[in-house]
Amino acid sequence: MNNKLYIVGMGPGDPELVTRKAERILRDSSLVAYFTKKGETSHAYRIASTFLLHKPEALKFEYPITTEKPHTGSEYQTAMQFFYDDCAEQLSDALQRGLSPALLCEGDPMLYGSAIYLFDRLNAHYPIEIIPGISAMSGCWSNAKLPIVRKDQALDVIPATLPIESLTERLKRCDAAVIMKIGRNLEKIKSALKAVGLFERAFYIERGTQIQQQIMALSALESCKAPYFSLILIPGRAKP
Amino acid sequence: MNNKLYIVGMGPGDPELVTRKAERILRDSSLVAYFTKKGETSHAYRIASTFLLHKPEALKFEYPITTEKPHTGSEYQTAMQFFYDDCAEQLSDALQRGLSPALLCEGDPMLYGSAIYLFDRLNAHYPIEIIPGISAMSGCWSNAKLPIVRKDQALDVIPATLPIESLTERLKRCDAAVIMKIGRNLEKIKSALKAVGLFERAFYIERGTQIQQQIMALSALESCKAPYFSLILIPGRAKP
Repeated sequence: MNNKLYIVGMGPGDPELVTRKAERILRDSSLVAYFTKKGETSHAYRIASTFLLHKPEALKFEYPITTEKPHTGSEYQTAMQFFYDDCAEQLSDALQRGLSPALLCEGDPMLYGSAIYLFDRLNAHYPIEIIPGISAMSGCWSNAKLPIVRKDQALDVIPATLPIESLTERLKRCDAAVIMKIGRNLEKIKSALKAVGLFERAFYIERGTQIQQQIMALSALESCKAPYFSLILIPGRAKP
Repeated sequence: MNNKLYIVGMGPGDPELVTRKAERILRDSSLVAYFTKKGETSHAYRIASTFLLHKPEALKFEYPITTEKPHTGSEYQTAMQFFYDDCAEQLSDALQRGLSPALLCEGDPMLYGSAIYLFDRLNAHYPIEIIPGISAMSGCWSNAKLPIVRKDQALDVIPATLPIESLTERLKRCDAAVIMKIGRNLEKIKSALKAVGLFERAFYIERGTQIQQQIMALSALESCKAPYFSLILIPGRAKP
């Protein structure tokens, strides 16, 4: 059998930011799989739909618990383990049937993607090809026209789910930073940024590259909660 | 005039990893511009050439000095300032003539790209659109099948041009890291990784997504110098 699992990065939202390789794989696919929150449309599937006019078979993987709940606690861990086991099993069945499923992923799959947990479960058993996608952060700094790092500047990509001490520690010595997974962590992030004198340099980007895109100085943001598709950028200082 | 400057990310090497947006802009372009080292073919231009069969006018920006020389010293700084001034002037002339030049960039333009210095010079004067590209690091961790960060892990992107003390300091407390700009810094990086116990976890990727791609444990690399298109990945530890 020459079939395999494709893990396909769909980019940040604009369907024109899909790669030619992802487009080809989607147009040829007879089975696509994707994650969704209960009752919501999958963002990755929405991006992909332009290329799925041939209506391939679809596997919908509905998260059992909101991923915005605290990730600690054994109940959450156990539910997610069972969920990923079940998703992997469904893909495994399809691979056994000789199909080459395309698992659709927002942004870039190997950068915080849920696809990682299916990759972990299937990699020893089936051929897998991973197609990188434009990451949300890259879509955001491009559309906001913010060169993020230059020359010998380092870049810190930091999940806002960290405790405030770790956030502050990391921000204190950063040249440039991307803060991901904002959600209900917005006030914590603001405090950390103020503590290290970076608040005025921070930009807030919501739904980057999507139609409802918002770009503003973080100091201009009035809401105290941010949607899942948002992030904060602290660009490195300009050097000639 | 509705014309503008396009800064176009061409991705890491595989022409199929170009976005549909970049492809459209290239196919429509009547003028492309690109950086090259003296006497070498531009990597970005080589990737783009698939989409340039209509032979648009081309501006070739030849670096006056190798960018692998130490970036300190006023001679280097001055030469590069003049060079970027001149490139910006040439693009400005084209924009004045009503053209919409496409400046081709390897990887993702706003992540360490030379295009940043032309953006700085032209942004106040002309409309500019930036098209993100798949970054080299993303192409590498996808092709090497190395999930780079999960859950609350942070990612450090570190230029190897930093002094060994800074390199070691950053590596010491990282969850996951990408080390860029390797070139002649390979021995320094190895020392820093060994000092913090990360050497055995590091992967070396040369010309990721290109035909000559090499992926190996860093400990298996025999050479003591690496080409420009190489980087080192330290993936975050697997968590279920």
